[in-house]
Amino acid sequence: MASRKLTRKDLADAAEKYKQWGRWGPEDEIGTLNNTTPEDIVAAAKLVRTGKVISLALNFDHNGPQGAKSKYPSLGRVNPVHTMLRTGTDAYAGVLDHRGIRAADDMVVMPLQCGTQWDGLGHVFYENHMWNGYDCRNVTSMGAQKCGIEKTKSRMVGRGVFLDVPRAMGRHVLEDGYGITCADLDMTAEKQGVAVRKGDYVIVRTGHMEAKLEAGSWDGYPGGDAPGFAFETLEWVKRTQLAALASDTWGCEVRPNETEPGINQPWHWITIPMMGMTMGEIFYVKDLADDCAGDGVYEFMFVAPALPITGAVGSPTNPLAIK
Amino acid sequence: MASRKLTRKDLADAAEKYKQWGRWGPEDEIGTLNNTTPEDIVAAAKLVRTGKVISLALNFDHNGPQGAKSKYPSLGRVNPVHTMLRTGTDAYAGVLDHRGIRAADDMVVMPLQCGTQWDGLGHVFYENHMWNGYDCRNVTSMGAQKCGIEKTKSRMVGRGVFLDVPRAMGRHVLEDGYGITCADLDMTAEKQGVAVRKGDYVIVRTGHMEAKLEAGSWDGYPGGDAPGFAFETLEWVKRTQLAALASDTWGCEVRPNETEPGINQPWHWITIPMMGMTMGEIFYVKDLADDCAGDGVYEFMFVAPALPITGAVGSPTNPLAIK
Amino acid sequence: MASRKLTRKDLADAAEKYKQWGRWGPEDEIGTLNNTTPEDIVAAAKLVRTGKVISLALNFDHNGPQGAKSKYPSLGRVNPVHTMLRTGTDAYAGVLDHRGIRAADDMVVMPLQCGTQWDGLGHVFYENHMWNGYDCRNVTSMGAQKCGIEKTKSRMVGRGVFLDVPRAMGRHVLEDGYGITCADLDMTAEKQGVAVRKGDYVIVRTGHMEAKLEAGSWDGYPGGDAPGFAFETLEWVKRTQLAALASDTWGCEVRPNETEPGINQPWHWITIPMMGMTMGEIFYVKDLADDCAGDGVYEFMFVAPALPITGAVGSPTNPLAIK
Amino acid sequence: MASRKLTRKDLADAAEKYKQWGRWGPEDEIGTLNNTTPEDIVAAAKLVRTGKVISLALNFDHNGPQGAKSKYPSLGRVNPVHTMLRTGTDAYAGVLDHRGIRAADDMVVMPLQCGTQWDGLGHVFYENHMWNGYDCRNVTSMGAQKCGIEKTKSRMVGRGVFLDVPRAMGRHVLEDGYGITCADLDMTAEKQGVAVRKGDYVIVRTGHMEAKLEAGSWDGYPGGDAPGFAFETLEWVKRTQLAALASDTWGCEVRPNETEPGINQPWHWITIPMMGMTMGEIFYVKDLADDCAGDGVYEFMFVAPALPITGAVGSPTNPLAIK
Repeated sequence: MASRKLTRKDLADAAEKYKQWGRWGPEDEIGTLNNTTPEDIVAAAKLVRTGKVISLALNFDHNGPQGAKSKYPSLGRVNPVHTMLRTGTDAYAGVLDHRGIRAADDMVVMPLQCGTQWDGLGHVFYENHMWNGYDCRNVTSMGAQKCGIEKTKSRMVGRGVFLDVPRAMGRHVLEDGYGITCADLDMTAEKQGVAVRKGDYVIVRTGHMEAKLEAGSWDGYPGGDAPGFAFETLEWVKRTQLAALASDTWGCEVRPNETEPGINQPWHWITIPMMGMTMGEIFYVKDLADDCAGDGVYEFMFVAPALPITGAVGSPTNPLAIK
Repeated sequence: MASRKLTRKDLADAAEKYKQWGRWGPEDEIGTLNNTTPEDIVAAAKLVRTGKVISLALNFDHNGPQGAKSKYPSLGRVNPVHTMLRTGTDAYAGVLDHRGIRAADDMVVMPLQCGTQWDGLGHVFYENHMWNGYDCRNVTSMGAQKCGIEKTKSRMVGRGVFLDVPRAMGRHVLEDGYGITCADLDMTAEKQGVAVRKGDYVIVRTGHMEAKLEAGSWDGYPGGDAPGFAFETLEWVKRTQLAALASDTWGCEVRPNETEPGINQPWHWITIPMMGMTMGEIFYVKDLADDCAGDGVYEFMFVAPALPITGAVGSPTNPLAIK
Repeated sequence: MASRKLTRKDLADAAEKYKQWGRWGPEDEIGTLNNTTPEDIVAAAKLVRTGKVISLALNFDHNGPQGAKSKYPSLGRVNPVHTMLRTGTDAYAGVLDHRGIRAADDMVVMPLQCGTQWDGLGHVFYENHMWNGYDCRNVTSMGAQKCGIEKTKSRMVGRGVFLDVPRAMGRHVLEDGYGITCADLDMTAEKQGVAVRKGDYVIVRTGHMEAKLEAGSWDGYPGGDAPGFAFETLEWVKRTQLAALASDTWGCEVRPNETEPGINQPWHWITIPMMGMTMGEIFYVKDLADDCAGDGVYEFMFVAPALPITGAVGSPTNPLAIK
Repeated sequence: MASRKLTRKDLADAAEKYKQWGRWGPEDEIGTLNNTTPEDIVAAAKLVRTGKVISLALNFDHNGPQGAKSKYPSLGRVNPVHTMLRTGTDAYAGVLDHRGIRAADDMVVMPLQCGTQWDGLGHVFYENHMWNGYDCRNVTSMGAQKCGIEKTKSRMVGRGVFLDVPRAMGRHVLEDGYGITCADLDMTAEKQGVAVRKGDYVIVRTGHMEAKLEAGSWDGYPGGDAPGFAFETLEWVKRTQLAALASDTWGCEVRPNETEPGINQPWHWITIPMMGMTMGEIFYVKDLADDCAGDGVYEFMFVAPALPITGAVGSPTNPLAIK
């Protein structure tokens, strides 16, 4: 953790230092997802050795983390509301037969940030700008006119690398407020015998979600204190040239934040709008962690398509690790 | 097309003939998805040769097919309604700053059958039964207690085979009411130099969606007349032992149906509840069709995860063909 | 409270005793709302003496009672989710100007039973029947084909009578589990100098909601223990021939219920399907209570229109007491 | 209709001329609703002579006007989506019994402007201001911090006056593009023998909705050409000091608008933000029209409570004319 609180000046310096606007041209809307090349995808596919598929999604339902007690409630985020439009009980009751088929349909109402999710590049602004320098006014009530999640429709495929930080540190779970450092990430990769390479999809375990699941309550999870990326890991993100980064917490970065009052989620201020990094949150990594610990293989093919909801600033996803 | 109209007796006979209940044990909830083995997945990954990723999803938005004119309106299905919970215009106006971060969030209201989608095994009933003999009363207003789409969470990965039927027939699009036969499918595979194998994900093009997109109107698409699988292809589905079958139409099977009045979607009556076959609908295949016509390669790695919405009878998906 | 637990036999007896099926003809779909005559409405209007209007609605928002801790969670009921379709911040940002008008729009997602509400006659069934003997299968996933709330579109107007039971008993609030008796209701009316007459809309205060509001938490309110109508008040409902009855609790009747295990809300089993009584719940009565205590006038014109949502089994409402 | 097209300068002049900011104090959030006094409400109640209640609401369902063809589609407005959370078919199937009660619940997803509705004072902005001079940035994605519809919770009660303009002109329906003038309104009132007074709720019939209902299609209704208030009626609104004004069209004012290109709904620009006038739209007035033509009585008690959805810029309503 920082020895002193980060100020707006520190953020402005970091914004300048890590800015990648224009790197993939002035029209780019997907940022670091460009780091993955077709060759990387071919190489990633070669990591499929046993045919095992591991989902990194929490199921989407009323048992999700939204609505739990929190210091920082994110207004408007509720758990998914799944309702039926037709049912098997309708079928049984005979009321569907006039349509010549007994079928069930359903519907969901869900905030796109309510569960296992990608934060798209329209999700966070630095001052009045979004990724690549686009004006933040491109994200209106009609959706994101720039950097909508639908632009990532054919992405989210590549080599996945899993970094089990607490395990590498000999622990079950990192404690709330623990800021994962660049050294922690390098140490973890080294212990696991895996190297993070340009274009990778990196999933980092803190154990935070598992602790909540074990406790039987999400209280403190959405917006609460949590382990997570220290602000300094911006350096690591830049150096590794990863495609996207995901974690098992609500917001990836360490909380309480390392900042002066009035600045919330400083790492987000830089990663999304300045660096163009798509971010995965609320990933369920227990099964993957167990599997990797079992076979010692921390790399795999990773496929986690976003739903191309036009103009969305994020998307629920069912990320698959294919080993 | 059938020379005579199919009756309930014909359906009962087919139900008996094609029934696969118990084939994967009495507790099974995913049916033919079991046909794909880990070895098949390893083999599928080897089909990734160029690193090209092609999405088979229509974007999810108010331009979707729901609400278009139709002979058979499916009540309750509307296009996705995407709304913002916070915006870049809020950011610009300064009203988010009290929370210390300028961020946008969003929400969607969507029928799970409104666009590119998997029909899960809770979607259709034969009389009072669903797949594997489960009582249809397992699908209540609280969702599917059996065969919910979340049970497929780690599936939808395998070898994809694309069958461009109209192209093989030297045509741009099949006409409404054209029932694709087993012979058509075999001929297409042969012309394309590809064999359908056990455990495959098979995507069949009719050209119907492209015709609607070209016409600039979805009228007639949802529930209207369409080319599609003839009832006899049940035989082909059984023979090939595919994992799942998808198409570019609203409902996969030929419409008008080959049935006497009062029987709607007869092929669905058998494929889903009796055979346990997961079905993909409203797949956007133009880009894939162009690509396959270009390189002559009609097989690829296919990854199309469902969103694990607990108890859902279907799921929107962003299917990826990885070549 | 009952000296012994009510059994299914007791309910069956009550069902028979209080059954009003056919009383307003075999086609009736609104039950006791028929008790109010045009003359009653004319008389009710004469009660408007000062022109004061008092709303009995809780505001509909995320601070509502749904989601609070409860012994008996009612799955699917969430607080209203209000989202904007266009905003003043959009206006300020200039992004609306291309449409020639700066306007805001909005949307709500709300369970119809989430706040101040009418329970319509499609809400509760006795065995396989709903009000007036209609088959319960008339309430399908497509809504209530009989007794939909839209049938009450021109009702919910009449004389309102407010019974402040705790005040009449010299108390601030009735305790959880207190079953209001016929004698309590009669005593309250007498102390208040008001008589309940045929066709009245009767609103009964328990103080339960105010206690929750004072406590700053809804925990225990939705589905939890509460004061409310004892089962015996069916007699009082029948005798008074009221039009509708409302209260300030989640479910009107006393909780824990006076029943053997396995029977929940026994009073509802009879009032709605057998007697045809529309019921108001989660009414906010503090302002009315204060006003009536101040002027000693416990009768008023009452207007509480349901939203005519076709096929709905209930409706949010903003009930007005006009004095 | 105007002999020349209205310009922005004309609107600026009108804004200045009709501005009522501050008239009810700097804190006011309900504007002309203040015009109704308690004495007016007492007087209005005396208009209840026969006890007849007439609803002015269209039912809220998928048959509503949204989604119909339109020159000016209002993005995001869909018809209400009503879904069930529990059903009578569930009851019949026995799947509810474990909860000890057979009950149905339901939910609605609805834009607040989708049917019979009040436009609140947060609905339209003039430049960067809303009613009473509040900054438009008070209407954010979190709702209207000022002038939310919940502020009108105890209003919408008073004397109703119905003006059947086409009838007074000897016609069935006004034609699209017909701008109702001050003289038309005065003539109608005079022919009907009714005077509009300060604090009245005035409902004006054009016949437009009835024409659409008779045609069996809403095409052209939402945002299309329509009869309605001419811009000059701002004078009439000011002179009469009415409380609120409603009509049977989508947007009250005449369409095509009397303006130069680039200015849409000019009357709204003035009535809502400058005058503070709440406006009713999509009112169903046929039954009221028939009744008034029958008895020659065009005044009544009017009660049309908004649902107090916190921060909403409008509300569906079931307006009642009580005669």
